[in-house]
Amino acid sequence: MAYELKVTRRVEFSETDMAGIVHYSNFFRYMEVAEHEFFRRLGFSVVTRQVDPPVGWPRVHAECDYTQPLRFEDEIEIHMLVKEKRSKLLSYEFRFRKLNGGGPTEVARGFLTVVCVTHQDGKMTPTTIPKSIVDKIEVAPEELLKS
Amino acid sequence: MAYELKVTRRVEFSETDMAGIVHYSNFFRYMEVAEHEFFRRLGFSVVTRQVDPPVGWPRVHAECDYTQPLRFEDEIEIHMLVKEKRSKLLSYEFRFRKLNGGGPTEVARGFLTVVCVTHQDGKMTPTTIPKSIVDKIEVAPEELLKS
Amino acid sequence: MAYELKVTRRVEFSETDMAGIVHYSNFFRYMEVAEHEFFRRLGFSVVTRQVDPPVGWPRVHAECDYTQPLRFEDEIEIHMLVKEKRSKLLSYEFRFRKLNGGGPTEVARGFLTVVCVTHQDGKMTPTTIPKSIVDKIEVAPEELLKS
Amino acid sequence: MAYELKVTRRVEFSETDMAGIVHYSNFFRYMEVAEHEFFRRLGFSVVTRQVDPPVGWPRVHAECDYTQPLRFEDEIEIHMLVKEKRSKLLSYEFRFRKLNGGGPTEVARGFLTVVCVTHQDGKMTPTTIPKSIVDKIEVAPEELLKS
Repeated sequence: MAYELKVTRRVEFSETDMAGIVHYSNFFRYMEVAEHEFFRRLGFSVVTRQVDPPVGWPRVHAECDYTQPLRFEDEIEIHMLVKEKRSKLLSYEFRFRKLNGGGPTEVARGFLTVVCVTHQDGKMTPTTIPKSIVDKIEVAPEELLKS
Repeated sequence: MAYELKVTRRVEFSETDMAGIVHYSNFFRYMEVAEHEFFRRLGFSVVTRQVDPPVGWPRVHAECDYTQPLRFEDEIEIHMLVKEKRSKLLSYEFRFRKLNGGGPTEVARGFLTVVCVTHQDGKMTPTTIPKSIVDKIEVAPEELLKS
Repeated sequence: MAYELKVTRRVEFSETDMAGIVHYSNFFRYMEVAEHEFFRRLGFSVVTRQVDPPVGWPRVHAECDYTQPLRFEDEIEIHMLVKEKRSKLLSYEFRFRKLNGGGPTEVARGFLTVVCVTHQDGKMTPTTIPKSIVDKIEVAPEELLKS
Repeated sequence: MAYELKVTRRVEFSETDMAGIVHYSNFFRYMEVAEHEFFRRLGFSVVTRQVDPPVGWPRVHAECDYTQPLRFEDEIEIHMLVKEKRSKLLSYEFRFRKLNGGGPTEVARGFLTVVCVTHQDGKMTPTTIPKSIVDKIEVAPEELLKS
């Protein structure tokens, strides 16, 4: 059972834009990196064929609040928390912390809602999260989510 | 005075991912393309040096709801609406419509809040939106925003 | 029969990096945009199911020489030329011209070699380019390629 | 003195395309990640202000040969070798190896030529590589480059 994960990462040159800071769209890539590592640690791949039928996790909602910019070579921690667990849906929170420059300082907070689907003839149909997966995931304690 | 803009675009191969659909982070790039075209049509560049001191527009909030996936070569319309105008802040709504395949069909809706800043010694300080810019922008009519 | 194509494009903010110029990897995305438009004008999609079996075009070689940087909002022309046509392989040349700022000025030149493949069980096997496709493509005249 | 570096990396979901493999443009991002780590290990940042005047490293040539595709979650090693050192120019070779699936297997080989420049009024002027930097870099042994 797991409800959180922390990964660290260094900002890459190609993630910056001409304003000298990480392009805001890249925070959504960062979120996903943590999410996929979370699945790996549970023993699954996010594109797993380990369940039958295979399931996918399209995003239905994504959101980010930015408080401070990130720059090239900044070391960041992405702290993922499971915020909600429903039969066909998972919701995550992501706290971005800059570790260098006197940190850790929270610089952004993100949210992602994903739906479990099966694929058929190029169509995606929402499905109940397989028991082998859902049994390993729990919602983070309220006091953690409130901090 | 302007409160909306529509741009069209064709989904590029490099914007898709292994699920065969546009990666969700790219919708945030699409939003920005409309925003920057909006500024150009007002006679400004979003990185304009046409005001003194030059101003920038870092994002403080970004959000997207996804209802249908987009695929390679889909033709999309990005409809941007000004949602809110405050002294130092602008807020936009973006409606993504797929034009091919029997459309137009709304496939996603995005939101962006940007703050007007000046840059000094690598620091960004919120500032009042220059009059020459703010005078050209108005909030979209309520009935349009409610649709 | 076609051997060339020109597409125009405006540099987007998210394509720049902290050096204030278009990140060098994005020229390879630009090349592909021209290539895919070339296929569309021939009546095909680069991921076409219009031939049986469907074929794909993985890259085996990519190359670019950069002479001048591109910046945000620059208008560019991507001029694609068919450089070589073999039974299972196509090779293209791309000339990047900046149209604004007194141009057109050539700022970069790219090369791409792609192989025609079929997909089977996740494996790609080189195959002869389908006649319906290859008959529409010819190598650009030598004097054009030499200019 | 250093002439090589190895970094490892896991293929991210957003680096794949609808063909199910890493988009070819991303290999150029991977090259850069190794190059920048190489500079950090020498005690510099590639966007260093540690020399006066500060220097930049625009790319004048980039190239990649692809022999096998990379897929999501593949573990890769990027092996960078200094290939050439001139007064104002450095040239690198990059060997991409897939570590999982029975590897290490070389899947691609890249080349990058960068020029040392100073920036003035938005213009880049080639300059001699500062002694403090160039003294720490040497060309890889010929037998290594020939392998």
